[in-house]
Amino acid sequence: MRNISRAELKNASVPQLKDLCDTLREEIFRTVSECGGHLASNLGAVELTVALHRVFDFPRDKIVFDVGHQCYAHKLLSGRAELFHTLRKEGGISGFPKRGESEYDCYGTGHAGTALSAALGIAKARDLKKEDFSVIALVGDGAFQNGLIFEALNSIRMLGSRVLILLNDNGMSISPTQGGTHDILEELKGVAPGDDVRLFERFGLQYRGIVNGNKLEELLPALEDAKADLRKGSVLLHVVTKKGQGYPFSENAPAETHGLNPKPATHAEYSAALGEELIRLAERDERVVAVTAAMTDSLGLRAFFEKFPERAFDVGICEEHASVLAAALAAEGMRPYYAIYSTFLQRAFDEIIHDVCAQDLPVTFCIDRAGITGADGETHQGVFDLSYLSFIPNLTVAIPKDIGEFRAILRQSADYGRPLAIRYPRIGTEGEIGSVEMGKFEVLHSTTSDILILAAGERCIAIARETLRRAHEGGMDAVLVNARFLKPLDVQFLSSRTEKYIVTLEDNMLAGGLGDAVARCMRGSGKQVFSFGYRDAFIPHGEPISLIQKYGLDPEEILACLRELYARG
Amino acid sequence: MRNISRAELKNASVPQLKDLCDTLREEIFRTVSECGGHLASNLGAVELTVALHRVFDFPRDKIVFDVGHQCYAHKLLSGRAELFHTLRKEGGISGFPKRGESEYDCYGTGHAGTALSAALGIAKARDLKKEDFSVIALVGDGAFQNGLIFEALNSIRMLGSRVLILLNDNGMSISPTQGGTHDILEELKGVAPGDDVRLFERFGLQYRGIVNGNKLEELLPALEDAKADLRKGSVLLHVVTKKGQGYPFSENAPAETHGLNPKPATHAEYSAALGEELIRLAERDERVVAVTAAMTDSLGLRAFFEKFPERAFDVGICEEHASVLAAALAAEGMRPYYAIYSTFLQRAFDEIIHDVCAQDLPVTFCIDRAGITGADGETHQGVFDLSYLSFIPNLTVAIPKDIGEFRAILRQSADYGRPLAIRYPRIGTEGEIGSVEMGKFEVLHSTTSDILILAAGERCIAIARETLRRAHEGGMDAVLVNARFLKPLDVQFLSSRTEKYIVTLEDNMLAGGLGDAVARCMRGSGKQVFSFGYRDAFIPHGEPISLIQKYGLDPEEILACLRELYARG
Repeated sequence: MRNISRAELKNASVPQLKDLCDTLREEIFRTVSECGGHLASNLGAVELTVALHRVFDFPRDKIVFDVGHQCYAHKLLSGRAELFHTLRKEGGISGFPKRGESEYDCYGTGHAGTALSAALGIAKARDLKKEDFSVIALVGDGAFQNGLIFEALNSIRMLGSRVLILLNDNGMSISPTQGGTHDILEELKGVAPGDDVRLFERFGLQYRGIVNGNKLEELLPALEDAKADLRKGSVLLHVVTKKGQGYPFSENAPAETHGLNPKPATHAEYSAALGEELIRLAERDERVVAVTAAMTDSLGLRAFFEKFPERAFDVGICEEHASVLAAALAAEGMRPYYAIYSTFLQRAFDEIIHDVCAQDLPVTFCIDRAGITGADGETHQGVFDLSYLSFIPNLTVAIPKDIGEFRAILRQSADYGRPLAIRYPRIGTEGEIGSVEMGKFEVLHSTTSDILILAAGERCIAIARETLRRAHEGGMDAVLVNARFLKPLDVQFLSSRTEKYIVTLEDNMLAGGLGDAVARCMRGSGKQVFSFGYRDAFIPHGEPISLIQKYGLDPEEILACLRELYARG
Repeated sequence: MRNISRAELKNASVPQLKDLCDTLREEIFRTVSECGGHLASNLGAVELTVALHRVFDFPRDKIVFDVGHQCYAHKLLSGRAELFHTLRKEGGISGFPKRGESEYDCYGTGHAGTALSAALGIAKARDLKKEDFSVIALVGDGAFQNGLIFEALNSIRMLGSRVLILLNDNGMSISPTQGGTHDILEELKGVAPGDDVRLFERFGLQYRGIVNGNKLEELLPALEDAKADLRKGSVLLHVVTKKGQGYPFSENAPAETHGLNPKPATHAEYSAALGEELIRLAERDERVVAVTAAMTDSLGLRAFFEKFPERAFDVGICEEHASVLAAALAAEGMRPYYAIYSTFLQRAFDEIIHDVCAQDLPVTFCIDRAGITGADGETHQGVFDLSYLSFIPNLTVAIPKDIGEFRAILRQSADYGRPLAIRYPRIGTEGEIGSVEMGKFEVLHSTTSDILILAAGERCIAIARETLRRAHEGGMDAVLVNARFLKPLDVQFLSSRTEKYIVTLEDNMLAGGLGDAVARCMRGSGKQVFSFGYRDAFIPHGEPISLIQKYGLDPEEILACLRELYARG
């Protein structure tokens, strides 16, 4: 698709704008089919974005996209159409709004609930600088449940910044939206919204709605009115859109077409194993319950939710609440499993410490998408979890070597009785369900050598094996160990070993991870520790294999390290 | 005060209960005067607590105190009266609810906003176990603004657990409560609360109020009614109390008597310096703004707020929102200073990564109460911050050696232009305002020795100096360095040194802190690193000096380490 000039957009007739919507939709569909990405949410927001670009003057006016699953049409309309085919590819344009990429992206997002806080900050800075432009927060109804949105709503009147909140209500998070906020929004779509309107007025908002967000004839005047009202104070414009709009298969299956992956997974998924094992546990143990934050399907829990509806809780995009809920369930004798992506668990960091671990409660965190995840970029890489879990007392941190080991750890988790975190990538190999003793490493390849390799998790073990294969060709060898627990560290094993050199590999930041923990344990032993993991930088979008290598786990470098140690003897 | 039996409480007349309230109030006042602690909030909740113990059957019924600043009367009425004189003392009873301390404390708290989530989890577990008891969440109006409360409200209907929310509305956080939620609550106290009542009904709550929470004659029947209504579903009972009730000096100065410290501070406070320096910066630089989360006074920002009301934002107990707001202000060219306690910044962990550092925005985090804080215990020790900040790309982490150095860093911070975190304890010594180059260590004591001591922050430098003084008596010496930046680490300095042994001292967990960073940097250099900091355990309440020594920074051990290294040569 070619770039559209501002003048072109401003002068187009409504039929021409509709044609533009069709073009955008085709472009989004074609690109997502090829590059992967978020389909249904972006398809639903096409008319809304065209109308915004028609009524407002970007980049002078500013828009913050909450999460950013709805920013593709905005990218296409802001000078990035000709680059759009590079979407989510290494060196290409990001799947999320990103400040460095375009002046049209005034604020980067990726995690839910930040847009209103960010818009208020931008508007406040505008007022302090005595500038004059409009600030818009585009928030989906799913993100609207997040506590951050509420905290921002709470301060609108206090801050006195004027912003336009565009509530894009499609009734869906990634899974269908549920909860009290959802009920309020549903009520507003009904006949007598009077009382609920006052709710928003209490927070200092002029409520405007309901507008059909897939219909330009309704949207354009509504946005013009909102723009005028914005001079008086903040406005909430309640827009209803259809996720997947324009593509019947997407409209009918918005959860399945929320995110598309360009290549079919040839490997097994850890999430499928999680679902199976939790059902198995729950059948045997009435204490087992599952908690998620709006990601039932992608975490593999659909069947569990169907089989045990009374014991399965999807609380919406509320990562903190989910963590406290799990802690309290555990305090009363239940065995909660809180499944979540690595990057989103960052939101519940304080609750892991304060609610779960300080009280030593048996919550199991099932941390999916750990390590480099790839195409979603900086905001979605799961490369911090080993670092932010490594120093929390009472917590056990497991890094299974394959899906079989993941199953083995899960099978004993309900009776473990303490806080447990299990981190794993999306895809893996099935492997045998062996026996795992908590806190104990496993020797995978035994030999006589001065070098001991500690590899954490499936990816690093694969890299270590490949490196060893090539080392063997050069006549070298090393002991290979499955470092499957970061915490407690297998101190007994480490102190029993006679190798002079220890090489650690982890799919995580170097700082604060396995390498640091092993080195701390080895201090004063005279042994030397060499660590491979990610350097001190945010890791952008790209192919996982390429990023893993580029940012710190380069088999060549690891092999060179082995060679040097071998030469030292 | 003697322990009161349940029978005694259940059989007492209302006048007798009033006498009991007086006794409790005296006991709380006497104990807090001696041991320090939270005064105004506890005084305000005496009648409410007596009424709760009269109407409900604890510990069979369960109560979760949000934050826990209102739990003293509960402790006095649940078999801990005779131990109450040990409040907040090492080995004594905690100033917060604590599971290990009593079966009457079903859920531990300390940070804001967790009570409703916890109550929902406890109620859900009750229902799954087919048990029958009442679950109460006692939440102040300050905590009621926190996003976690909203996330929990959002899931009440969805979870279908029946809980009683006691909204203890005293119009105060630590500072006076502000914001949209506050306005709604104020409106409810007015004449026509009809619409707002519907708001709570939307979330699945039966709204009951307003009740005078300092008047037993109103409270007792209201709680009986709420208990009955609780059989049908969740209830919100809106109780209005007076912070400091019964003590005019506390009623009139609730912010000043929120927390009392047993001993007058003989040292200067970092917070006072922060306030002075921010005013100085703001006078010179229009970009400078301040953000806090309901702690204006204790962070030293009162004068700044009075002098620059347009550039000072207290957003209530909303640590996440404050962080995003600061990021967005920075994105638009401002220079926000976000002042917060170390332990509460844990709540904004994801936003530090996702909003501030991933976008490389010039937000300065002024992290007060870092290191061991003492009497508030596990939930308030600031011992994790170096660990959770150490691996975040783009972030500079400073640990000034005294208040003068803190001032020096602040004075150059507005032009630094990048994310900056400065961590410091509450009290310190003034010191000179020297010049500080970002990322550079400073030699404090130079000598020829095999030992290099890296000490981070005022406390550790004092411990190092004292250890060195004693070492000198034994004819030993070592170089002492002010390790004032954890990030970027002064690699150039470290690689230029010739000492064989490096000893690190930090007022933080050992895991993931300065010692680990230095050891990582020194790997392969042949140098040995020995680290002192806190071991892998939660640190309970007690005297800071005693806890610091007991949990990992023992001058005797450090001296023994120096002796051993000295002997090795």
